[in-house]
Amino acid sequence: MHTIDIRQDQIRLLDQRKLPLVEEYVACQSYEETARAITDMVVRGAPAIGVTAAAGIALGVQQMPEPDSEADFDAQFDTICETMAQTRPTAVNLFWAINRMRECLQRCRQAPLAQRRETLWQEVYHLHEEDIRLNRQIGAHGLDLVPPQSTVLTHCNAGALATAGYGTALGVIRAAHFAGRQVQVLADETRPFLQGARLTTWELQRDEIPVTLITDNMAGYFMQQGRVDLVIVGADRIAANGDVANKIGTYSVAILAKEHGIPFYVAAPLSTIDRALASGAEIPIEQRHGDEVRTVGSQRIAAADIEVENPAFDVTPAKYIRGIITEVGVASPPDEGTIAALFSASND
Amino acid sequence: MHTIDIRQDQIRLLDQRKLPLVEEYVACQSYEETARAITDMVVRGAPAIGVTAAAGIALGVQQMPEPDSEADFDAQFDTICETMAQTRPTAVNLFWAINRMRECLQRCRQAPLAQRRETLWQEVYHLHEEDIRLNRQIGAHGLDLVPPQSTVLTHCNAGALATAGYGTALGVIRAAHFAGRQVQVLADETRPFLQGARLTTWELQRDEIPVTLITDNMAGYFMQQGRVDLVIVGADRIAANGDVANKIGTYSVAILAKEHGIPFYVAAPLSTIDRALASGAEIPIEQRHGDEVRTVGSQRIAAADIEVENPAFDVTPAKYIRGIITEVGVASPPDEGTIAALFSASND
Repeated sequence: MHTIDIRQDQIRLLDQRKLPLVEEYVACQSYEETARAITDMVVRGAPAIGVTAAAGIALGVQQMPEPDSEADFDAQFDTICETMAQTRPTAVNLFWAINRMRECLQRCRQAPLAQRRETLWQEVYHLHEEDIRLNRQIGAHGLDLVPPQSTVLTHCNAGALATAGYGTALGVIRAAHFAGRQVQVLADETRPFLQGARLTTWELQRDEIPVTLITDNMAGYFMQQGRVDLVIVGADRIAANGDVANKIGTYSVAILAKEHGIPFYVAAPLSTIDRALASGAEIPIEQRHGDEVRTVGSQRIAAADIEVENPAFDVTPAKYIRGIITEVGVASPPDEGTIAALFSASND
Repeated sequence: MHTIDIRQDQIRLLDQRKLPLVEEYVACQSYEETARAITDMVVRGAPAIGVTAAAGIALGVQQMPEPDSEADFDAQFDTICETMAQTRPTAVNLFWAINRMRECLQRCRQAPLAQRRETLWQEVYHLHEEDIRLNRQIGAHGLDLVPPQSTVLTHCNAGALATAGYGTALGVIRAAHFAGRQVQVLADETRPFLQGARLTTWELQRDEIPVTLITDNMAGYFMQQGRVDLVIVGADRIAANGDVANKIGTYSVAILAKEHGIPFYVAAPLSTIDRALASGAEIPIEQRHGDEVRTVGSQRIAAADIEVENPAFDVTPAKYIRGIITEVGVASPPDEGTIAALFSASND
């Protein structure tokens, strides 16, 4: 199973809107189709969005009409990057990946077009492999936070489907599982898009990691019953002070965890940390179409004209977070100092 | 619109599984069919379950084969009451209503069968009217807790559809609205049965009370944004110390409200208070079929064999509750003393 299957004539994406009932790939034949697939959530999850956007840029440059000047090349390249940047506003990995592609271009800009194309594709493959490798490192760093026999609650899907593979939050759970710890997972269904019900249960079941599906509003009940040992979630953007934007509902889970004295962890690569933002208050929150709330799949659940709100993310202040698990270590508690230290470590 | 339409040859129930897409009545032709309608959630909401169960008992006695002795009558009556008692375990109004019918029978047990039947029907009509009257009194007592311009968050449906009419939590909101206060409602969709999305929005829209639908996991986000002034919910059973069993997810909302300093109120008639239970730990929590979580209406959202839990209720400890609004006044803060005082007031 590949979340993102990169070919040089198309980007094939496992259609996450249709899982788990249908396993089907969407073939994006152009950078515009790749951008639309991100907007429509064929692919989702901050790291997966980043890799897909990078691939879309390489595909756009591949298919670009022969430029008649360097200025024309730049204009076309900017249009491609800008189209990608317009897809979804919250996950910073998108902008990080676009920057990586821009930097890559700078390094090969003296080369002829064919070679630029090849170099950009190499960067995409590198980003794809790097993401999987970093997720395994996140898993290794998070492993010891998971007690030998424990139940981990997670929200949304921060797994193989949210990344190039292996996963961040689910990467930690996978690492614990494959290290022989008896770990079971409580998966919040995660309305409205149901990433927990549809994606997290599906990929954990494939790995034979015990998983129980609950509705979002049951999390407090299971904590009250003493049936949750820790919470691990992913992230879409992390501010310099450790505030975390993640899927809507994450903030509520963090408060519930605090009230019950349950450790709450975030697992994410450094590319999810946006050091340009001092705090989570500066993170843009995507508002999506109300029909996602008025319906579940093809099933309408409320009057078509009912007023709805649909913020796709929320911000969990750092004070609710025990630690942020990254590929270079755990920022615990997360704050400006511990996060800056992660970047120092990564530069060593 | 009648939630429960009582005729002496059948009990007609507005089918709450099909709202808001279809407005259709289920005709229960026997006490067994009435019991099944309660179990299957054609009708739901603690006060509505109570009135429906009472009506089912009267219907059962109406259709009872001519008893050949008093002992035979008692045996048949016990079977009817026992069938009703087996429908759903958490809402205490069910058992309260059965007791009311038993007491009514004691008062008319010297009369011939035809007169007993008539007296039992009169008790049902009395309970039905009484429920609406008490809800209006709850509304009157709760009115002043709703500021002139405010947004009230509610969970599940504690409205006209959960009662004989008018509602408890929505009764307070109705009272505030009709008293000219600008009140708007944020309705949690309330998975898995979606009482908020399907029922609360539907009945508030009919009364032209502004309502916005959100998913359960958005409640914390809106509190964080300062967009919730107070929370009002209903109850399925309240212990003598003020602990409240209500629809799954209520406990989480209460914790979120506490964390944000937002007052959290419960609105319920005294018949919902079970003084035989010292605390909420003794309240039985109904576990329902996992397919309610694996599906939304006809739409399946997870693998058919995925492990699921489906507790239908949770218990909110009294310490999270600012006040319990009843027909005789508000127990605030709720505890053994303030709750006992309500019963003293009701006996005056």
